[in-house]
Amino acid sequence: MSTSEDYLKLRQTIIQKDRLLRRENYPRTPLTPKESQAESFLRQLRAQEAVRFWKEGKDGVHLFPGMEFLTAKSIIDRTSLFKIIRRMPKGALLHIHLGASVKASALLDIALEHPELHIRTSETLKSDRETQPLPDFRPFSSRQGSITDLSSSDYLPNTWVPLQEARASCSLGVAEFDAWIISSLTINPTEAYGTHNTVSKIWKKFQSTFDVSEGILSFFPIWKRYFRELFQSSMEDGIMYIESSYNFPTIFQPDCVTRVSNAEFLQLFDEVINEVKMEMKKQGREGHFQGAKIIYSCMRTMTAKDLDTSLDKCIQLKQAFPHLISGITLVGDENALQPLTYYLESLLRFKQKQVDLNLDIPFFFHAGETLGDGDRADDNLYDAILLGTKRIGHGFSLPKHPFLLEMCREKQIAIEVCPISNEVLRLTTSMPMHPLPVFINHGIPVVIGSDDPAVFGNMGLSYDFYQIFVSSEICNLSTLKALASDSITTFYSSPL
Amino acid sequence: MSTSEDYLKLRQTIIQKDRLLRRENYPRTPLTPKESQAESFLRQLRAQEAVRFWKEGKDGVHLFPGMEFLTAKSIIDRTSLFKIIRRMPKGALLHIHLGASVKASALLDIALEHPELHIRTSETLKSDRETQPLPDFRPFSSRQGSITDLSSSDYLPNTWVPLQEARASCSLGVAEFDAWIISSLTINPTEAYGTHNTVSKIWKKFQSTFDVSEGILSFFPIWKRYFRELFQSSMEDGIMYIESSYNFPTIFQPDCVTRVSNAEFLQLFDEVINEVKMEMKKQGREGHFQGAKIIYSCMRTMTAKDLDTSLDKCIQLKQAFPHLISGITLVGDENALQPLTYYLESLLRFKQKQVDLNLDIPFFFHAGETLGDGDRADDNLYDAILLGTKRIGHGFSLPKHPFLLEMCREKQIAIEVCPISNEVLRLTTSMPMHPLPVFINHGIPVVIGSDDPAVFGNMGLSYDFYQIFVSSEICNLSTLKALASDSITTFYSSPL
Repeated sequence: MSTSEDYLKLRQTIIQKDRLLRRENYPRTPLTPKESQAESFLRQLRAQEAVRFWKEGKDGVHLFPGMEFLTAKSIIDRTSLFKIIRRMPKGALLHIHLGASVKASALLDIALEHPELHIRTSETLKSDRETQPLPDFRPFSSRQGSITDLSSSDYLPNTWVPLQEARASCSLGVAEFDAWIISSLTINPTEAYGTHNTVSKIWKKFQSTFDVSEGILSFFPIWKRYFRELFQSSMEDGIMYIESSYNFPTIFQPDCVTRVSNAEFLQLFDEVINEVKMEMKKQGREGHFQGAKIIYSCMRTMTAKDLDTSLDKCIQLKQAFPHLISGITLVGDENALQPLTYYLESLLRFKQKQVDLNLDIPFFFHAGETLGDGDRADDNLYDAILLGTKRIGHGFSLPKHPFLLEMCREKQIAIEVCPISNEVLRLTTSMPMHPLPVFINHGIPVVIGSDDPAVFGNMGLSYDFYQIFVSSEICNLSTLKALASDSITTFYSSPL
Repeated sequence: MSTSEDYLKLRQTIIQKDRLLRRENYPRTPLTPKESQAESFLRQLRAQEAVRFWKEGKDGVHLFPGMEFLTAKSIIDRTSLFKIIRRMPKGALLHIHLGASVKASALLDIALEHPELHIRTSETLKSDRETQPLPDFRPFSSRQGSITDLSSSDYLPNTWVPLQEARASCSLGVAEFDAWIISSLTINPTEAYGTHNTVSKIWKKFQSTFDVSEGILSFFPIWKRYFRELFQSSMEDGIMYIESSYNFPTIFQPDCVTRVSNAEFLQLFDEVINEVKMEMKKQGREGHFQGAKIIYSCMRTMTAKDLDTSLDKCIQLKQAFPHLISGITLVGDENALQPLTYYLESLLRFKQKQVDLNLDIPFFFHAGETLGDGDRADDNLYDAILLGTKRIGHGFSLPKHPFLLEMCREKQIAIEVCPISNEVLRLTTSMPMHPLPVFINHGIPVVIGSDDPAVFGNMGLSYDFYQIFVSSEICNLSTLKALASDSITTFYSSPL
């Protein structure tokens, strides 16, 4: 190799080899001329808007493409690129937690429709308080409490009062009241990038949002609108199918006393799916909504014995609703809670039971959602794969594992990558630091998840797609197409 | 696989396979019983000190092992682990820039010995100024200026005054004066983690430190003590050999007018090496200092034509000082400056000339020191490897490249990883997010570099070793041994 011409030829060969495994380079339908045109248009738009919107800000504000989402969101909303991405088909949304899948403001709206929902706080609200107490919700069939203004000095802490009245009578005003509720259901930039700027600190705030929403979600009548909101808003974002994990906590009937059975819950889920499907059919948009399933999830706080009980329940549900239970997962902060090995015996028994009963309830384990190297959370990757997981939730630490990368590629184990979740939960500081390109270039199937969009504000998949697209020169329309396509391949392998 | 016993056996096999390529698992001398004892002692100490020193701080301070170095440094200094690591042999230091290799305070001390060194500022210093102007240095054989107090309202901006007198007469006081000089030569936590918290912003501050030191380093008489300081402080840190990159800028003789030739510079370098070697021999510590070499470096700001001239000079120097020139590199912010392809013709000609002249001047290219994915800086990796680089400086974006990872492993191209540099220059926010474990687990030789310790404060290699060791559960004494050992294998392959 002596001439630069020879060199450049060899260079091209090596770049091709290096990108051979890249997801969009797998045998796929090549781009149509129109798609190619769109691709180059999008590249140009990205370059233009990188300068127009993401030029480094003055006054100590750091703006760049792929920057911290919570700070960037209002700018993203203004870009043309985002508006275009909103309209792209996203395929399936396969990593989302049901309890954090509907916009916080929508959840509040839904809650306000039900006079049964009550609220309480452990301290009175004060306009000058730096941090307000968290609200606590619960349904009651009969009206509770007398002093309904939570900011009144006469309010007796921890007394339940009707939510509607508490809101109407709050001396801070309705807007302030709503903002308080919503801030307790979401993570804001100051928390993620300031006060709680480490994995363990932000997880504390993150958990607290579930403690708040739990009370509203414990009232069965809210769920019909909740499911509709999830399906409708997802469709508007180009999502055609959803697998959402859910741990079936206690839910009350309209009488606020009787518990809803898991079967009743799934029946409602099924009902709303069918309603929405019918509506779409009437509108001639049948293909736009292919349905939804539940990934039965268990908390990593459980004892192994409790997991046994829970897995048996999962089997019963799968037998009763084979078309609604897609699989099973374990959830919660891997860095702090039980590793998969702790549950080994139960999980092996669960597999054996499936063989005996001729059932297929695949694992969709969360694993490697950590910055650890060789710690329990990182080691969960070994167990997830060894136990035969069909997809891996997060798999953030996977790039450190050469053999596991190979196994994921060979077995086509998809990684459910949740870019914005990882960033807000402080595994990465911005998208350019995220390991997604490692997965894509190593030929590992990737599906994008929004994880807990109610908490992070990344409703749908467009925000995650946007962050991915602006953080890489090499990412183009074909990449986004491959991501959407991978999500469909993955869910079609477990037939609807 | 039905029993948990079978499972755990298989698990062990998979973990072994996954870690097979890991650097310390390459055929090496196994740990001696004493080393094993030390290993478990260090693991315990790490766990203890993680709680004792790195427990998350109160009042919004986030403390954790491997956190931002500039904030962590004073805590690291207090740990027993750091004191132990200080005493470990580090092997060779192969990635360090000569002009930023000596502690800023030591450089100031050296400068103060020479009455020829003058200073000026573009504005007067003021005690209440938020940001002071940068100092500018230059040697003069005759005393310049009259008003020597740079903070006096009578000081005429841009007038040269003797450094010694400026310091003594400064109304802000000597301590404040020294602090100002040192802050202009270093990056502080507020800059790295606040005002300049992006790659492009921090590079501006970074560059400015070189603009300041340049004037002092342009005076030949300072270099004897400078070299001694570098060698001595490195040896105290357990470093036995140094390859330092240097771009041979203008340097003045004691007369402050005549230029020092590159040959004269190298002669002095050689002289000091030999002196120190002799001293070590006398002390019976002959093995502790094996010498030092220069990596001839060229700025990526050059035109291709200027590079041709510079490469010819490099060839002449190599012919004159074969034992002092170890190779060649290109330096400067890859994200902003020329990519390797821009210099392709020159670099290919340079290789051909080496064949014709029977010379061996290997490339030690900086490449992939970027967060980019598929941009010019990231693509430099293709060219570095294709041009036959012997090591890669930084290679930060290498994990994204499956084929290049394979090539580096097969060709045993070492990656010069500079953990603290990468973190301060904002490629990673903390060590647990750094890709080092990817390299180690993929069986790629790694050597650790301090890059610009004068600017970052990570003198020697102990701080970098410390940050690596506390950020990974899997990293142990054998890992540090492998890192030191890789550095020696690498430099021995180009015989001293």
